[in-house]
This record gives sequence, C-alpha cells and structure tokens, in this order.
Amino acid sequence: MKKLDLFTPIGLILGLVVVGLAIYFNAGMDAVLLFMQLASVSIVFGGVAAALLVNFTGRELRKLPAIIKEAFRHQDYDLQELNGTFVMLAKKARKEGLLALESQLEEDVKDPFIKKGVRLAVDGIEPEMIQDILMAEVVSMEERHKRGRRILERAGDFAPAWGMVGTLVALVIMLNDLDDPATLGPSMALAMLTTLYGAILANLFFNPMASKLENKTETEVFINQIMIEGVIGVQSGQNPHILEEKLRAFIREKRKPEYDIRESGALAHEV
Amino acid sequence: MKKLDLFTPIGLILGLVVVGLAIYFNAGMDAVLLFMQLASVSIVFGGVAAALLVNFTGRELRKLPAIIKEAFRHQDYDLQELNGTFVMLAKKARKEGLLALESQLEEDVKDPFIKKGVRLAVDGIEPEMIQDILMAEVVSMEERHKRGRRILERAGDFAPAWGMVGTLVALVIMLNDLDDPATLGPSMALAMLTTLYGAILANLFFNPMASKLENKTETEVFINQIMIEGVIGVQSGQNPHILEEKLRAFIREKRKPEYDIRESGALAHEV
Amino acid sequence: MKKLDLFTPIGLILGLVVVGLAIYFNAGMDAVLLFMQLASVSIVFGGVAAALLVNFTGRELRKLPAIIKEAFRHQDYDLQELNGTFVMLAKKARKEGLLALESQLEEDVKDPFIKKGVRLAVDGIEPEMIQDILMAEVVSMEERHKRGRRILERAGDFAPAWGMVGTLVALVIMLNDLDDPATLGPSMALAMLTTLYGAILANLFFNPMASKLENKTETEVFINQIMIEGVIGVQSGQNPHILEEKLRAFIREKRKPEYDIRESGALAHEV
Amino acid sequence: MKKLDLFTPIGLILGLVVVGLAIYFNAGMDAVLLFMQLASVSIVFGGVAAALLVNFTGRELRKLPAIIKEAFRHQDYDLQELNGTFVMLAKKARKEGLLALESQLEEDVKDPFIKKGVRLAVDGIEPEMIQDILMAEVVSMEERHKRGRRILERAGDFAPAWGMVGTLVALVIMLNDLDDPATLGPSMALAMLTTLYGAILANLFFNPMASKLENKTETEVFINQIMIEGVIGVQSGQNPHILEEKLRAFIREKRKPEYDIRESGALAHEV
Amino acid sequence: MKKLDLFTPIGLILGLVVVGLAIYFNAGMDAVLLFMQLASVSIVFGGVAAALLVNFTGRELRKLPAIIKEAFRHQDYDLQELNGTFVMLAKKARKEGLLALESQLEEDVKDPFIKKGVRLAVDGIEPEMIQDILMAEVVSMEERHKRGRRILERAGDFAPAWGMVGTLVALVIMLNDLDDPATLGPSMALAMLTTLYGAILANLFFNPMASKLENKTETEVFINQIMIEGVIGVQSGQNPHILEEKLRAFIREKRKPEYDIRESGALAHEV
Repeated sequence: MKKLDLFTPIGLILGLVVVGLAIYFNAGMDAVLLFMQLASVSIVFGGVAAALLVNFTGRELRKLPAIIKEAFRHQDYDLQELNGTFVMLAKKARKEGLLALESQLEEDVKDPFIKKGVRLAVDGIEPEMIQDILMAEVVSMEERHKRGRRILERAGDFAPAWGMVGTLVALVIMLNDLDDPATLGPSMALAMLTTLYGAILANLFFNPMASKLENKTETEVFINQIMIEGVIGVQSGQNPHILEEKLRAFIREKRKPEYDIRESGALAHEV
Repeated sequence: MKKLDLFTPIGLILGLVVVGLAIYFNAGMDAVLLFMQLASVSIVFGGVAAALLVNFTGRELRKLPAIIKEAFRHQDYDLQELNGTFVMLAKKARKEGLLALESQLEEDVKDPFIKKGVRLAVDGIEPEMIQDILMAEVVSMEERHKRGRRILERAGDFAPAWGMVGTLVALVIMLNDLDDPATLGPSMALAMLTTLYGAILANLFFNPMASKLENKTETEVFINQIMIEGVIGVQSGQNPHILEEKLRAFIREKRKPEYDIRESGALAHEV
Repeated sequence: MKKLDLFTPIGLILGLVVVGLAIYFNAGMDAVLLFMQLASVSIVFGGVAAALLVNFTGRELRKLPAIIKEAFRHQDYDLQELNGTFVMLAKKARKEGLLALESQLEEDVKDPFIKKGVRLAVDGIEPEMIQDILMAEVVSMEERHKRGRRILERAGDFAPAWGMVGTLVALVIMLNDLDDPATLGPSMALAMLTTLYGAILANLFFNPMASKLENKTETEVFINQIMIEGVIGVQSGQNPHILEEKLRAFIREKRKPEYDIRESGALAHEV
Repeated sequence: MKKLDLFTPIGLILGLVVVGLAIYFNAGMDAVLLFMQLASVSIVFGGVAAALLVNFTGRELRKLPAIIKEAFRHQDYDLQELNGTFVMLAKKARKEGLLALESQLEEDVKDPFIKKGVRLAVDGIEPEMIQDILMAEVVSMEERHKRGRRILERAGDFAPAWGMVGTLVALVIMLNDLDDPATLGPSMALAMLTTLYGAILANLFFNPMASKLENKTETEVFINQIMIEGVIGVQSGQNPHILEEKLRAFIREKRKPEYDIRESGALAHEV
Repeated sequence: MKKLDLFTPIGLILGLVVVGLAIYFNAGMDAVLLFMQLASVSIVFGGVAAALLVNFTGRELRKLPAIIKEAFRHQDYDLQELNGTFVMLAKKARKEGLLALESQLEEDVKDPFIKKGVRLAVDGIEPEMIQDILMAEVVSMEERHKRGRRILERAGDFAPAWGMVGTLVALVIMLNDLDDPATLGPSMALAMLTTLYGAILANLFFNPMASKLENKTETEVFINQIMIEGVIGVQSGQNPHILEEKLRAFIREKRKPEYDIRESGALAHEV
C-alpha cells in the first residue's frame, strides 16, 4: 500500500525557502517581488511545454500528472515478511501438494503479483511459462515507468535551455537600445531571471523527481525478481531451507563479520 | 493507419509564440523585426547544412523530409484488439489446424506484419526460422529508423555550435572596430542572435523531434515483439487461455492492487 | 567499387563559404583578411597535433591521411543483386552440389568476402568454423575502423579545448597590459579567433567526418552480416525460397501497408 | 578487517589548505574571512539538501553518514593467503572428503563469505545452487553500494548547479540596484562565492568520494568472484594444482617477461 | 620487448612549444615569465592532488609513476611471426604429438603468455580450463590497466575544475577591492592563469595519456585473444591450414578487392 512520501514536498519547500532566504538576506523583503515576473515565468514554462509537446504524444503527456503524483508516494516492502511467505508456501506445497496453496492464497498473500504467480502454478502451468509471463509483466512495467520518467528527464533538459533562450531574447533587446544607461542594470537583472528559473526548475523539480522515480522503479523490479525466484522455488518443490537461504542472500542488509549465517534467525528488514 | 500527430505542430507553434510574446512584452511589436535577420539565419542554417553534408551521404540526407514528416504522424495501436486477434487465431488453429488460418487471414487480419508471420506458419516453416525472419525485419526497421533519426540528433548538436560560430564571427568584427561606441550595443545584439537561433533550433525542433521519433520506434518494436510472441504461440498450438495471459502481461496498463486477474475481462487499451 | 562521395567536399566548401559570407555581410571584403591570422591558426593546429601525438602511436597517426581520404569515398551496395546472387548459389548448390559453386564463383561473384566464404564452404569446412572465420574478419575490420575514426573524434575534442587555450593566453597578455585602451578591442578580437577556429574545426571537419565514417562502418558490418547469413544458408542447403525471404527481411526499405509480401517481386534497393 | 583510510582525510585537508593558501597569497590573512559567508554557504548546502530530499527517500538518506564514513575506511586483502586457503581446502577435500572441511572451517577460515560457501558445499547442496546463492549476495551487495554511492554522485551534480543559482540570485539583485558603483565589486565578489563553494564541494568532496566508493565496490566484487571460483573448485574436487593456477591468473600483479610460471612460488600480493 | 614511444615526449614538448610561441608572438620574450606563477601552479596541482587523494587509495596512487612511464613505452607485435609460430606448433603437434612441443617451447617461443598456454596444453589440461585460465589472466590485466588509467582520467576531470576554483578565488579577491583600477587588468590576468593551466594539463597531459593507455590495453587484449585462439587450435589438433586462415582473418590489414585469399602468401604486418 502506498503512503505519502513526505521527503518530496519537504525538499521542494526547503528549496524554495533557501532561494527566498537568499533573496531576503541579500536585499530584504521587497526584493522577493522583483523575482516574481510573470512574463519571465511564462517564457520558461511555455518553452518547456512547447518542447514537450513536440517531444511526446498526447497519450504520453496525459500521464504527466499521475507521474508527478507518483513522486510523492512511497511504498514500503517488508522483505522479512516476504521471505516468510515463500518459506510457508514452500513448506505447504511440499507437504500437501501445490493444489493446497489455493486456499492459503486468499488468506495469507496480499501482493497481487505473488498471487498471480502462485495461481498460475496451481493451474499446472510449466515453470518456464510462469517465468515468461511474470517477467513479461515486470519488463512491461519497467518500460512503462521509463516512458513516464522520460518526460521529467526531458523537461530537466529543456528548462535550462529555455531559460537561456529567455535571457538571450532580453539581452538582444537591451543591447539594441542602450540609450539610457540607468535602465541597463534592471534590464540585465530581468534578462537573467529566466536563466535562474530554468536552473531551479531543473535542479529542484524535474531532475530530482525523475531520479527518485528511477530509484523507485529499480526497487520494484528488484522486489519482483525476488518474488519470481520465490514462486518458481515453491512450484519446483525446492527445499524450504535452501529457498530461504537463497532469498535471504538477496535481501541481506549488510554482511556481519562475526556472524554465523545458519544459526541466526535475524533477517534484514530493508533493501 | 497513421493519423496527423497534432501535438508536433501545436508544440512548434507554441514555442514560436512564446518567443514572440517574450519579445513583444520586452520591447513592443517593432522589436520582432529586429529578431528576423536573414544574414544571421543563413549562418546557422548554412553551417548546420554544411556539417550535415559532411556527416551523411546523399542517400541518407534525401530521406530527411520523410523523417521530419514522420514526426507529424501518429499511429494508434488497439492492443485489446491485437490480443483478441491472436486468441481467435489460436482457437481456430487448435480446432481446425494451421491451414484453416489461410482464409481467416484475408478477412480479419489487417496488419501486414502479422499476416506475413501467420502465412509463414501456414506454409509450414519452422518456428525458429519464422522468428528469425520476423526479427530480421524488426531489427532492420529499428536500424533504419535509428539512421534517419540520427540526422536530426546531429543537427541538434550542430545548431548551437554554429550559433556560437556566428556569434564569434560578429564579436571579432565588432571588437576589432570599436571607434563608434554608439554601435557597440546593436552590434552585440546582432552577434547574439545566431546563438539564440541555434538554441531555439536545437531545443524546439531538432532535439524534441528526434526524441519523439525514438519513442515511436520503441513503441513499434515493442508491438512487433508482442506480435512475434503471438504468431509463435499460434503456430506452436499454445493453449489460447495461456497465450492470452502472456500477451496480457505485456500490455497491462497498471497493476491494480485489489484485482483478480483471472476473473476480470478488462484489458488495458494502451501501451 | 568505391566512388567519390561528393557530399563531403561540398559540405566542407559550403561551411567555409557560410563563414566567409558571414564576415563579408558584417564587415565587407577587407575583414576576411582579419580572420586569417597565421599565429592563431598555428596555436590551434599545433595544440591539436601535440595532443594527438601524445594520444596515439606513430603507427596509428600514419593512417590519418588514409582515414580522411575514406571520408571522401562512397561505396554503393546493390542489395537486390546481392540477394539474387545468394538465391542463384543456393539453387545451384541444391541441384548440383556445393562443389559446382567453384566454377560459378569466378564468373558471377565479385565481392571478395562472399568469394572467401563460398570457397571455404566448397573446401568442406564446417559451418561453425566458416562463421567464425568470417566473423573474425568482420570484427577485426570494425575494430580497425574504430581505431582510425577515434583519431578524428579525439581531434574533435581537442580542437575547441586548444581554441580556448589560445584565447586564454591572449587574454592574459591583454589584461596584463591595459595601458592603451585603443588596442583593447583588436586584442580581444584576436584572442577570440582561436576559439572560433577550434569551433569550426570541430563542427565542420573532425566531428562530422568521424560520424560519417561511423555510419559507413555500420553499413559495411550490416552488409557483411547479411553475406554471412547467405553463405551459411547456401552451405546448409537451405530452401532458396526461404533464404530469399530471410535476406529480404533484412533489406526491406519500408513496410508497405497494403502489400502482399509473397506475390510481389519488388525488392528494396537501399539499406 | 577495516582500517582508517588516511588518504581521504589527508586529501580533504590538503584541498582546503590549497584554497586557503591561494587566498592568503593573493590578499593576506584578512581575506580568508571574506570567503566565509554563512549566507552563501547556506544557499549551496540548503539547495543541495533540498534536491537530495526530492531525489531520495528517507530510508536512503538515513544511510548517508554510514556511506560517507565508508569513504574513510580501507580493507586490505591478502590475495596470497586467500589462494593458499583454497589450495589447502582443495587438498583436504580430495584426501578426506568434503565433510572433513567442517572442522577446518572454524580454525582456518575467517572470511564469512568463504565460510558460507564452504558450509553450503559441506551440506551437500549442488554447485549451481551454491553459485546462485553466493552470486545473489554479491549482486545484492553491488546494488546496495550503487544506491548509496548515488547519493554522493547526485550531490556532486547538484552542488555546482546550486552554486550557480546562488550567484544568479545575487547578480539579479546587484544589477537591479546599480546606484552606488562602490558596492558593485564587493557585491559581485559575494555573488561568485556560491559558485566557488559549489565547485569545491563537487570536486573535493562529493565526486572524489563517490568515485573512491565505486573503486572499493569493484575490488570487493572482484575478490568475491575469486572466492566463488575457489569454493566451486573445492567442491567439485578440482586438482589443487590447477585450481591454484587458475586463481593465480586472476591475481597476478604483472606479467614478468623472463619468468617461468610453474617453478616460481612467488605470488602477487595485491589486486 | 618494450621500446621508447617517442611520440609521447615529442607531443608534450610540441604542446609546450606551441603555447610558448603563442605567448612570444603576442607579447615578446618577457611575457613568458608572466605565465610562470608558482602560486597559480600550486593551486591547480595542489587541488588535483587533493582530489586524487580523496578519490583513490594509497596503493593505487603509488602506481601513478609506473602508469605515466607506461605512456612513454611502446610494444611492437609482429603478427606475421605470431601466426607463423602457431602454424609451426600446430604442424608439429599433429605430426609428433602435443608432448613434442615441450622442447620446441624453449627455443622458438618467447612470449610468456603463449608459453604458459602451450605448457598447460602439454600438461594435458582440458581446453576449456586452459581457456578459463588464460582468459582470467587477460581479464585481470584489463581490469588492472583500467584501474591505473582511471587515475589519469580523473586527473583530467579535476584539472579544469580546480583551474576554475583558482580563477574564482582570485576574482572574488579582486572584485572585493576595486579601489585601484590600474591593478584591475593584471589581477584578472593572474586570475585567468589557473584556468589556462587546468586546460593545458587536461588537454595535453592527462586526457591524451589516459587515451593512449586505453588504446595500448585494447591492442594487448586483442593480441592475447588471438594467442588464446592459437593455443586452443594447437591443442585441439586443428588443421594448420584452417588455423592459419582463422588467425589471418583477425590480422588482415585491409581487404584487397582483387585479391585471391588462398593463393597469396602475403600477410598483414600490423594490427
């Protein structure tokens, strides 16, 4: 079940506060308004939006809100419980046969991916085919996430570029009409604002968010691969002890130097 | 069948409007003309064209219009229908034999890639050879698209570089003759125009277009791989139920947490 | 047989003309001379040459003229004829045996790579060994080309860097002696010339040429792989019809939506 | 056993001393204070922290102190001893059987990874499964390290970017209020400080540390792969002489031209 | 046997001469001294050294002199002789048996890698194991070289960065104290010196040297792979004629269009 990932909004707010304080300490409260120029904001956002429209199809762009929302959500995995589930299933399967898992499924297994895998096993489908079907789902999930993430990554490329376009436009205009030296400073200040916006957009929003989503997908793929190992192990009637050893190898938090692996019941809780 | 991808022209126009408004709000309508300097445009376009001529052969460059046109076209895939086609073919093949598919082909299958695959199956060619032939076509399509796309990618590299060349040429001339300070500003404004053109060309036209074409090729390869799975499944007389499960794994839009995969008839409609 | 690739010299000349016109329109004919400073040219060329000497061995650098010459040459492949050759060889081999190909070779096969492959087949060497020998030649060709191309790629990296070194040297000297403001402009103009040279060298000569050579090698590898498929197909007595189908899959120019693959005799002529 | 890696603190201190001396020689002791601006430091650190919060989950960021600590620790491997251990185990296993290794383990083998492998062998688990279990642990360790290292790598990306954001903010404020030319210089000096901080943070702390951790992980993976080769060799009853030859090939420091490999007992001590 | 690679020192000297002449032609002999500022040199070297200390372990850094020395050495391979050696060994092995190679080894084979391989074959070790042992040595050599080269590559990254740090430090000091405009120019000149040093260090020393070492390692790996093919061919009693054909395919300098491969005795002499 997904929960709010507090770190994303905290990071975003902290970033804006940092910029706000930088302005405040340099020039007092009034200067903050100087940094809020609708026209400058429009160039950067408009340019990025234009480039994204050329870069993606409508179908892909419609997913953008869901993708951004995903960066605010967090899913915890209890790997010890996961391991325990497979050991329990493996024991039952060896004692009572694969068909006995059917009833167990409804009660004890919540993850739909494991459910699907075990059900295919109960249905008597061959291990290679089960692995094929489950891997197809993982690969397709990975591909789908990569597609969504790419919108943010490209936005992170386009934001500084369009910030520079805005600055260049303003500089050309300013340089073309140098009559009044008094306006030179403020004009240049305005010109540089779009570069600033582009840099903040890229380095606070787009790039970190895309990178967080990439981390999340990697974790999900990793968990799914453990699940596939577990399902195949259960189906092929592997020794529960060995299956546990194998799954544990994946999820060990840290190798402890003076630690006897066989005696210890302790299991890492994290990936 | 391909349709107009409206997002490409909308994005291009939006990008130009954004730049136009940026000029307008900074300096009024008259300034727009200042930004249209044929000489500056010529340097950037001429330089990019020169570099592309050195970089590619005539045969490759002749395809450029078709490649750009491709960025304005969009192909929709109905994955549910695709899945249904293969389930139908698999059922028929199991009931009436592979030869019975011949007649079905003309009526119900429109995609030439599936048609070719099924026909090879009807002709009694072995699965490995069919896979080889179909994959050869996919790989060659991918390679051909990559080649075409590369022209746009390289243009996206050359545009900012030649924008800078234009600026450097103008700066050298300006710096060499500083007699009249009054012309200093306008000269620098003119010098910076080519850098601006290069940035817009790269970040509104070349790079987003190349990236859109890459996305489209990836989708096409993905669809073709599903089709190959389907053809091989049909030929090898796979259980239509299992085949459906496998193809469905590829195309599932999203895993729904509280969702029983076997009962549901719902199928994702998108990639 | 290789022919002159006209696009390379045309591109190079166009690029220089573009720069020349840029100068001419900005400052008239006299200014062109201003851009030809032997000292500035020497820094960039000398620096790039020095870095290449450190970067490569004498044996590698001696090949540079041949590598550059290669960027001016073009080889056309007639893929339809290629396909026809293999179908003809496959038919003859099935009818009259592999040994009958010996006589055919001299008359009808011109490509030395195919000749070598068929000859090995006639000599009775096993398919795996033939594939090994032919692939060794392809891999070694690819590696050799990559090595040569890398000199141009590295030159494309070093040129802007040494352009900047030249500019920095001139700026340091100029800044150190600001007594006469009148010379400030021309000195800075001179300082920026090396940066300009570096940018043109990289974006008109080195990078586009290296990229063209990469494209050419890719094409050659692709053609050779088709040839290996063909030779192995001929040797293993594959059905000429199927062999044709397979080779055709590689070389299809474009999938035509309303196009029956089996009936049509049309074949794509290009890669 | 891990020891303090003195080079990390020495490098960090040397870097700061270098910057300090650069200031001192340019402008005397007083200027050092000029470079310590809490506000400027806060922008860069605050911005990087904000971006990292968006980029990673809380669970990942909590590991940051341990990851940084790891860059200060060093593990020595005695490869000759490692080789000797496996030769000893292989001899004993061939003479007295695999079960005899049980007692040997407690006395002579300290590394928990080798212990685990040998114990699995003693338990009679098949070689493929042992390799699977041990590789799962290596892959999971590699993945875990990559995740941790990535925090430092991303910080190395964000630091210069936020240094630039700080400079842009200060420049915009300064340019907007050019009334008093006397403050122009000091204002620009202050503006550039954040860029300086970003550059130092990236090129003295984050990037070199991330790179050191990458080197360490590579070494650990390499050692573990040798250990897996050794365990499998011992289990499959390989000739100790051949096993030694194989392990030695991995760890040879340098090929000595006039050196007879079979006679020499000398072994490289380093990776 | 390794010889001095003259191109490395010639390139380094040429690079320094180019910079020297650039200074001389711009500002006469006296200016050369202006470019030799011990303080500026110290910042760049000190900063790079500090970053390398953080980035690598003491064990790795101790190898730096040997790595740099390696960039000044050159090893020639006579591929024709190499091919001849294997053909000779293959003939002898087929006529007189593998054991007969023992005596031949001392006289005719100088390369320790071939010696080791043939000796393993004479000892009756299986081909797969020989290949494993020899490949382990190649992989470990490649890895070791990559590690060493990486120090130079990282130095090539750090040099421009620390050049910029030096420039920023000097600029901040200069801007903070603009009282005397007369010192403005020389101060800025001094500030830019470190950027110049960083650029030269990266683009004349570190990057080209690292790249040369990479080329050398690639060649060595390539030669070793040919040797492994040769040793396995000799051991498995391959037909000397076919073995020659195969090894020749690797080392062919260039495909000659009108060239009958079987008749010709000519062999390429270079890689």
